Amino acid sequence: MTTRPNLRIDLDRLWSSLMEMAEIGATPAGGCNRQALTPEDARGRALFKRWCEQAGCTVTVDGLGSMFARREGTENLPPVLIGSHLDTQPTGGKFDGVLGVLGALEVMRVLKESGLRTRRPIELVNWTNEEGCRFAPAMLASAVFAGVLPPARALDARDAQGARFGDELAKMDLECSAPIGGREIAAYVELHIEQGPILEAEGFDVGFVAVGQGHRWYDVAYRGFGSHAGSTPMPTRRDAMAGAARLVLELQAIGRKHGPAGMATVGEMHVAPNSRNIIPGEIRFTIDIRHPDHDMLEAMDAEVRAAFARCRDAERLEGELSDVSYNPPVPFDADILDIIRRQTAALGLKGRDIVSGAGHDAFHLAKVCPTAMIFTPCKDGISHHESEDITREWAEAGTNVLLRAAIELAERV
Amino acid sequence: MTTRPNLRIDLDRLWSSLMEMAEIGATPAGGCNRQALTPEDARGRALFKRWCEQAGCTVTVDGLGSMFARREGTENLPPVLIGSHLDTQPTGGKFDGVLGVLGALEVMRVLKESGLRTRRPIELVNWTNEEGCRFAPAMLASAVFAGVLPPARALDARDAQGARFGDELAKMDLECSAPIGGREIAAYVELHIEQGPILEAEGFDVGFVAVGQGHRWYDVAYRGFGSHAGSTPMPTRRDAMAGAARLVLELQAIGRKHGPAGMATVGEMHVAPNSRNIIPGEIRFTIDIRHPDHDMLEAMDAEVRAAFARCRDAERLEGELSDVSYNPPVPFDADILDIIRRQTAALGLKGRDIVSGAGHDAFHLAKVCPTAMIFTPCKDGISHHESEDITREWAEAGTNVLLRAAIELAERV
Repeated sequence: MTTRPNLRIDLDRLWSSLMEMAEIGATPAGGCNRQALTPEDARGRALFKRWCEQAGCTVTVDGLGSMFARREGTENLPPVLIGSHLDTQPTGGKFDGVLGVLGALEVMRVLKESGLRTRRPIELVNWTNEEGCRFAPAMLASAVFAGVLPPARALDARDAQGARFGDELAKMDLECSAPIGGREIAAYVELHIEQGPILEAEGFDVGFVAVGQGHRWYDVAYRGFGSHAGSTPMPTRRDAMAGAARLVLELQAIGRKHGPAGMATVGEMHVAPNSRNIIPGEIRFTIDIRHPDHDMLEAMDAEVRAAFARCRDAERLEGELSDVSYNPPVPFDADILDIIRRQTAALGLKGRDIVSGAGHDAFHLAKVCPTAMIFTPCKDGISHHESEDITREWAEAGTNVLLRAAIELAERV
Repeated sequence: MTTRPNLRIDLDRLWSSLMEMAEIGATPAGGCNRQALTPEDARGRALFKRWCEQAGCTVTVDGLGSMFARREGTENLPPVLIGSHLDTQPTGGKFDGVLGVLGALEVMRVLKESGLRTRRPIELVNWTNEEGCRFAPAMLASAVFAGVLPPARALDARDAQGARFGDELAKMDLECSAPIGGREIAAYVELHIEQGPILEAEGFDVGFVAVGQGHRWYDVAYRGFGSHAGSTPMPTRRDAMAGAARLVLELQAIGRKHGPAGMATVGEMHVAPNSRNIIPGEIRFTIDIRHPDHDMLEAMDAEVRAAFARCRDAERLEGELSDVSYNPPVPFDADILDIIRRQTAALGLKGRDIVSGAGHDAFHLAKVCPTAMIFTPCKDGISHHESEDITREWAEAGTNVLLRAAIELAERV
């Protein structure tokens, strides 16, 4: 065990890099618009590459543009991989993804300064197109890296204007010569902002992401009869709005019953004919349920289906519940989590286990190597918004944990 | 009392006229698009005028295009007015309004054939722009006739394309020389389809409209916080959708509690940002409450305001309830209703008192003269729809009641 207990990151250097990166694609409201494979992304990548090389790393790029900055180990072993993504939403913030990449860069800088050589190589990754706002689906390059999607699925993805991923990648001034995945990774650790309010509200410095939430998406259509609001007595109505309202509240109860980890959301609703004095004849809406435990998510699924039918029948409606997508929960690696918990305690920081509600590249990596995530708090749980914010102290705490966990993992055989 | 007890309408003639009028503006799905002051309206008016003159009436047109076909009485007394409107919704039916006009025309035809001279004149009216779908508000010409709105309000009304009511009226080939209202009317009786399901469901031939419903319209805005559906625990959510769902169900309960005449409807809803995996941060929706009794409508109003605040607070939302419009209940004339009830019984028909949920020209006329309405059933309560339908028997029953009530009213001094 060669970890030097006094090794710490340089917060001023980290913060300065975060702020410099945020200038690329900066929006008037203080956020970032640095979508994947745009000129802003190219500028961000060029800056990132220069920083990596200054930190003593060798940068290679795979066939989908994901960038790997490698610091060799003392032995010829599979590397420890740390990182996240530099691309943002169109009105995104400065920290979502970026903290994970530049925090990992800070790890590399500390290692270079300290002269510490770990047994395993450490690689820093910047995944292409995590956000999915330009090319669907989200987490595209990491999905191909993990063998979840074929490379052609990414290369042929098109944005809203019809531009092809492969063509846009070719404009990036990157030598995309490294193979996409297909190699052994000893461990993957991703530092990320929570994108939720729990850590801040409860006063924790760090979250140990034990599991990535599973979720199911559904579409609902309820059809009643769109008759006159002034001449249709209440008892004879077949009011799709009333059916939808019943189901919204039943879903809220299902989410609460399976809480605190269970969640249920109706985010999107379309009413027809949507006229003030006509009883809604048809309502279409979405359901999103989430739970980190497979069996609980299955139980919620059964309850959703029963509630759908019960609310339909209560208002004498017709309609369908359609499955849109299913993503099972992603359990993270217990050994890595133990290391993260221990290093957090050793740093005198307060941490707790937490569930990742949003999806991350780590969800795909977990399929091919031991994986875990470290969360930092974020202000008011806001992300995907220009007002997304974190404190310097939170950035420091999470990155110090990443530093020490990465070193410990890289010393393991 | 000179009413001839054996006087009856000619159903074949009435039905034939209804079907001939329905050809003007006929839609492929079997409905009518004969909106106010369009070329189709002009053709309908020309046909109507020819029929009125063939029935021995003198046709005059007031300054807003409302047409009055007069059959003189034996004495110089204020007339009995019967009629409705020939304009339709863009995807309207064959009977809404049209039955009241052509039923009244059938009354004139029977009177001419029978040679019966009533003491009072009888006038048949076709009101301009009852529907309101082209020029807002609905019942525009009758509102001016009754002194509720100034003439300029109608003449300067504009349709969605910016066309001015007065300019469109000038294209109609009508001599609009008669004054708008300002004269004494002995009684107004309007025959109309129910636009609701009650009479058909309960097997009645005729409805005696004792009162026109009052209604209040509101706009609601609920604002919560639009955070991530996967990382915002249920207890910390401020979900505008949940607040709206609560209020929809509370309103349903308020409507039912004040039933069978009380009604409450949420017909229109707009969700923001309306995205599958974002908790709705803002929902705007409408409320429509109705009751034929003033005090009950006031009680419902108080309950709506309390429910709005309760549901807002239950989900920790902010927001406003805004008043959009208030129309008090319109009680119809007890003496005319007695005549209608008696003549219905004399014809061996089954009738019941009923509330008008929709608005009608009669609501305005009630402000300036004794007024009542006769409803016929309509299939499945459907109106404002191309599938709007009635049976020949219903048309016959209602028009026979109108015939005999009009004669009795025209014999009264």
